[in-house]
Amino acid sequence: MKQKIRVGILGATGTVGQRFIQLLESHPWFEVGDIAASDRSEGKPYHQCCPWKISGPMPGYIRSFVVKDCSPSLDCELVFSGLPSSVAGEIETSFARGGYPVLSNSKNHRMDEDVPLLVPEINSDHLDLLPVQKHGRNFKNGFIVTNPNCTTMALVMALAPLHREFGLEKVNVVTMQALSGAGYPGVASLDIVDNVIPYIDDEEGKVESEPRKILGKYQDGKIAFADFKISAQCHRVNVSDGHLEAVSVTLRQRPSTEQFVEALKNFSSLPQQLKLPSAPCRPVVHMEGQDRPQPRLDRDLEKGMATVVGRIRACNIFDYKFDLLGHNTIRGAAGAAILNAELLVAKNLLKPL
Amino acid sequence: MKQKIRVGILGATGTVGQRFIQLLESHPWFEVGDIAASDRSEGKPYHQCCPWKISGPMPGYIRSFVVKDCSPSLDCELVFSGLPSSVAGEIETSFARGGYPVLSNSKNHRMDEDVPLLVPEINSDHLDLLPVQKHGRNFKNGFIVTNPNCTTMALVMALAPLHREFGLEKVNVVTMQALSGAGYPGVASLDIVDNVIPYIDDEEGKVESEPRKILGKYQDGKIAFADFKISAQCHRVNVSDGHLEAVSVTLRQRPSTEQFVEALKNFSSLPQQLKLPSAPCRPVVHMEGQDRPQPRLDRDLEKGMATVVGRIRACNIFDYKFDLLGHNTIRGAAGAAILNAELLVAKNLLKPL
Amino acid sequence: MKQKIRVGILGATGTVGQRFIQLLESHPWFEVGDIAASDRSEGKPYHQCCPWKISGPMPGYIRSFVVKDCSPSLDCELVFSGLPSSVAGEIETSFARGGYPVLSNSKNHRMDEDVPLLVPEINSDHLDLLPVQKHGRNFKNGFIVTNPNCTTMALVMALAPLHREFGLEKVNVVTMQALSGAGYPGVASLDIVDNVIPYIDDEEGKVESEPRKILGKYQDGKIAFADFKISAQCHRVNVSDGHLEAVSVTLRQRPSTEQFVEALKNFSSLPQQLKLPSAPCRPVVHMEGQDRPQPRLDRDLEKGMATVVGRIRACNIFDYKFDLLGHNTIRGAAGAAILNAELLVAKNLLKPL
Amino acid sequence: MKQKIRVGILGATGTVGQRFIQLLESHPWFEVGDIAASDRSEGKPYHQCCPWKISGPMPGYIRSFVVKDCSPSLDCELVFSGLPSSVAGEIETSFARGGYPVLSNSKNHRMDEDVPLLVPEINSDHLDLLPVQKHGRNFKNGFIVTNPNCTTMALVMALAPLHREFGLEKVNVVTMQALSGAGYPGVASLDIVDNVIPYIDDEEGKVESEPRKILGKYQDGKIAFADFKISAQCHRVNVSDGHLEAVSVTLRQRPSTEQFVEALKNFSSLPQQLKLPSAPCRPVVHMEGQDRPQPRLDRDLEKGMATVVGRIRACNIFDYKFDLLGHNTIRGAAGAAILNAELLVAKNLLKPL
Repeated sequence: MKQKIRVGILGATGTVGQRFIQLLESHPWFEVGDIAASDRSEGKPYHQCCPWKISGPMPGYIRSFVVKDCSPSLDCELVFSGLPSSVAGEIETSFARGGYPVLSNSKNHRMDEDVPLLVPEINSDHLDLLPVQKHGRNFKNGFIVTNPNCTTMALVMALAPLHREFGLEKVNVVTMQALSGAGYPGVASLDIVDNVIPYIDDEEGKVESEPRKILGKYQDGKIAFADFKISAQCHRVNVSDGHLEAVSVTLRQRPSTEQFVEALKNFSSLPQQLKLPSAPCRPVVHMEGQDRPQPRLDRDLEKGMATVVGRIRACNIFDYKFDLLGHNTIRGAAGAAILNAELLVAKNLLKPL
Repeated sequence: MKQKIRVGILGATGTVGQRFIQLLESHPWFEVGDIAASDRSEGKPYHQCCPWKISGPMPGYIRSFVVKDCSPSLDCELVFSGLPSSVAGEIETSFARGGYPVLSNSKNHRMDEDVPLLVPEINSDHLDLLPVQKHGRNFKNGFIVTNPNCTTMALVMALAPLHREFGLEKVNVVTMQALSGAGYPGVASLDIVDNVIPYIDDEEGKVESEPRKILGKYQDGKIAFADFKISAQCHRVNVSDGHLEAVSVTLRQRPSTEQFVEALKNFSSLPQQLKLPSAPCRPVVHMEGQDRPQPRLDRDLEKGMATVVGRIRACNIFDYKFDLLGHNTIRGAAGAAILNAELLVAKNLLKPL
Repeated sequence: MKQKIRVGILGATGTVGQRFIQLLESHPWFEVGDIAASDRSEGKPYHQCCPWKISGPMPGYIRSFVVKDCSPSLDCELVFSGLPSSVAGEIETSFARGGYPVLSNSKNHRMDEDVPLLVPEINSDHLDLLPVQKHGRNFKNGFIVTNPNCTTMALVMALAPLHREFGLEKVNVVTMQALSGAGYPGVASLDIVDNVIPYIDDEEGKVESEPRKILGKYQDGKIAFADFKISAQCHRVNVSDGHLEAVSVTLRQRPSTEQFVEALKNFSSLPQQLKLPSAPCRPVVHMEGQDRPQPRLDRDLEKGMATVVGRIRACNIFDYKFDLLGHNTIRGAAGAAILNAELLVAKNLLKPL
Repeated sequence: MKQKIRVGILGATGTVGQRFIQLLESHPWFEVGDIAASDRSEGKPYHQCCPWKISGPMPGYIRSFVVKDCSPSLDCELVFSGLPSSVAGEIETSFARGGYPVLSNSKNHRMDEDVPLLVPEINSDHLDLLPVQKHGRNFKNGFIVTNPNCTTMALVMALAPLHREFGLEKVNVVTMQALSGAGYPGVASLDIVDNVIPYIDDEEGKVESEPRKILGKYQDGKIAFADFKISAQCHRVNVSDGHLEAVSVTLRQRPSTEQFVEALKNFSSLPQQLKLPSAPCRPVVHMEGQDRPQPRLDRDLEKGMATVVGRIRACNIFDYKFDLLGHNTIRGAAGAAILNAELLVAKNLLKPL
């Protein structure tokens, strides 16, 4: 790739926006061309309006970028959106209408019938929705591709090989989610010190619906949702990054424990074959220690792009139970959108304006 | 009660022992007569050998008590045991053999066929095992009564009214347990800062077996275990006190949500009728806020003697799901043993030496 | 006291307001007559608009109180103010002008020349400013009395006996302050997990000025500030309640360590003599353990109304150094204002409207 | 450097030993040749006996190394010691006597008259003690070089340029130290959740003595300690890595604030000139934000090898006050010893056995 593709970032000053900026600092294919955020920041240099909250200093390259408003006149060939859901819906549509491919991390369009909820390891064929979307919405060159909610993302990566090999019947998941999932300022410290909060607004519904779309089949311009039951109970714990999930599954064909573990460990797919720059070597990492995975120790495995599983064992009620962990702001947000964009490049689906 | 009953405390310097000492400070029926602990502390005044870890100062009354060794020659009419399981089995037996009623918080004898695993609100009839136990073990006046594991305790208090009213069929529980459950020093701070540990040694087995005994029926000198499936996944979180548990249940007769909530809220039983001093007014407290119960805010309700439930709602897989919270070192340990002793007093089952 | 004095609470829904409501629940002299807060809450029952953040449930007595706006027509004989400083200045003045004694926890009037910055153990004679204040401001029955900033409060209680006995020359203080000091939502959890913040807005200035006024002398209608140097460095740590302060002092007459300790331990003053209901028996508690005081273990000593000191030892630069701890939302805020009000009652300085 | 120098690690399974193993994973000059630890681990492969506690997996290269006992027959040209002080003194001496250069992180020999307490940026001339040491102790090729205590290390890096430029007269330091400084298991989680501990065993003495040796002058076979007063108050806070220190200094020649800041920012020395592989580009990093440095955000600057300073301002008692931060297990321990070894290589002071 001789010249890098210029990308824009919507919501550049937020938690997800900051992660985009960090992950794109030395990306081999993309370079940041323009950034946009809410009116509050418009017209200011990034380093003056962004409360940088990621470890390490703000990358030097972005400091003097002037924040623009979120109208579809950015100097770039695609946009990543880390916008809050209160505004993401309309703005993303306006960009797609304006001819930009939109890689969105927001919830607004995820469940739209004609929008791919894309996980490159799992459902690259859902990109066949794009012509349907363009036609139905009268988009010319632009379109919208979304990535899952952070909790769904970590979960579905482990579910995919199980579903493919054995068929999912029931999935029960209880989550212990990190603070960064709530954005900034997000959770008040007084609410979480010496505490757990057994509720996350609007979260369980996403976890109970998105996996069935992601694991669904594209057919005749639509996604037929996968047919399994799923129940979620979501909790906030006092952890900076990394969502931990206690999962139980019943499968249509019950494998042996060894087969179950092998299916997870051996999972590898298109992004690995295409050697996409952000693809983890192992989409699912299996840890053997009886007390793993743990957020602080394991969230950065595969640069935060994998789902880490452990404690796989038989269950008295379901077939198997285990714990899994995913980095919620990397693979669970910005990293997922970037990997999606990489797949679009590799499949030659990015049309220049 | 004119004169207080003198009690002894085994393992007086440990986490549970300290809680016994605190809860007995101004108990209307009991007063501490003697304390015992491991060799390390023997012969020393309590305030010199006990690393007091409960908020507030060490109660003045106990400071100058000299710690004795754990042999059955303590000056008291019953003993509470907060001994570690590595030594509890033999020592407790020796005390029972020596004529002492033993109220044990240790796991060693809980699942013994002839030992009541007593929860006064639930299975006071299991005390009918005592004659069986005395006869079978050749105990004269002494005997052993146990209380459940801390996680089981909080759980079973909510399961009991559900089981009685609707019949339990399946119970799935994912726990988020407090640090104090591991004793002192227990969990290393480096292991839990910014972290969750998805494993607690020997815990899941207890949670998967004890409830079936507790909810079982006494019949002909034995306990017939309750017939339902139960699966547990246990986690340690960065919380000082208070175990939170995400529970899902399927019942034999599916109630309406309202009936389900009412069964929990209205649960009241023998300790409440007898007005035992440590009995909570409400064994199960129902909180309405969508983000409750929370350990830091709710663990001290009913002086830490109740199970607090919230977020009751229908489940896609089970009938209902909800969260519950119990104070693991009060009702989950020392408080449970004290309530058990109160029931023995009220039922006139304490025979003086 | 036959009939309780009706009090009002300004800023009733905030962190300090909640503490007022908790501490006044069963106060022997005062009862809450009216509560007021910002427009957002006006007209709503308290339990609907207050995000209650103190352990344990919201006191039943206050649940159905309707929140009024902050205009001086409340049904009460005095008002406690926990208003934010952005609005406290004007509102408190309007209440004083309207005839209400105002017991303020806000910073706005603390350093006003004619306003007592009152600590009953230390400077009850500063109440002689009240006639000056009333005359100068044309107040009829109303007036304003303030209590110190939370960090100052804990500090000055230890400084007072040292100053009286030996004369302060230099005071260096480095603070480690609790989250509740920032109100709610206050500090974002992402800012404090696995972290310390070496800055608190507008705090060091207060700590460097208020003690010199509090320890100053009333003379001829004014306070002559105490003449010593003081320097503060303020930090926020991941603790819910309880400000810890590392203090070093040089005195005009250097005492022996024993004299130094005795001066602190023996400190007792007017509120103790008058047996004011909220007065701590020991305004300064000395702990002997080499690793005390600690926020979680010691903040509730004397019901949170004392300053706890420990680790007193000679210093290579100053005369002595030590650590002290105060409960920042009890003695450091609402409790201080209530004690001030009790002193006014005892001195018969509350004039009914 | 064609062939790497083989190094040994004493105490390889401990917190500091793990950091040595991590930092040496791809070191350009050194490779691990042998590892040793206590009897408990002897004879076992590293991955079986080491409770790896650093984020990310145990480096692959070390997994199958067999742990040897700590006797001076390791296959290496120098040893790094992360031994606990209970055994470090004798073992390190035995290795030096056995011909090994010993780079020690332990306290035992730090204050020995003939042992360099080396910080390459500050006192490389203290290496002139080595001939004195060898002669006095009858060592042939071996010798001992120590690095400072973790708290001292971060502090002295900021003090050095101030001392050189303006002359130190008084230094007051209040520390807020990370959990990893206590090793593993170290601080019990119950002791630090929602808490600060105002005491660290044996710490203040080190911080009050080591800087005066480090900043002292080598003369005629001895170190003349620097002549300034220093006082320390040490606290443990709930932070995984990174010691924060609130410092106040009085100087012999009072600089302007600008001069003060410049002296810190411009500090650069021998390791920077020699481009030693582990040397930070900036030994002292100055951050401008009013709320910096913060442990979680700033501890990894310069790969954890720098002291980060911020909040420099005039003081009412001393000349200036500020906060500083250092990574306690990198520059404060293993990284310091490695940099010391690099200086020995660069100065050609490593004699092969």
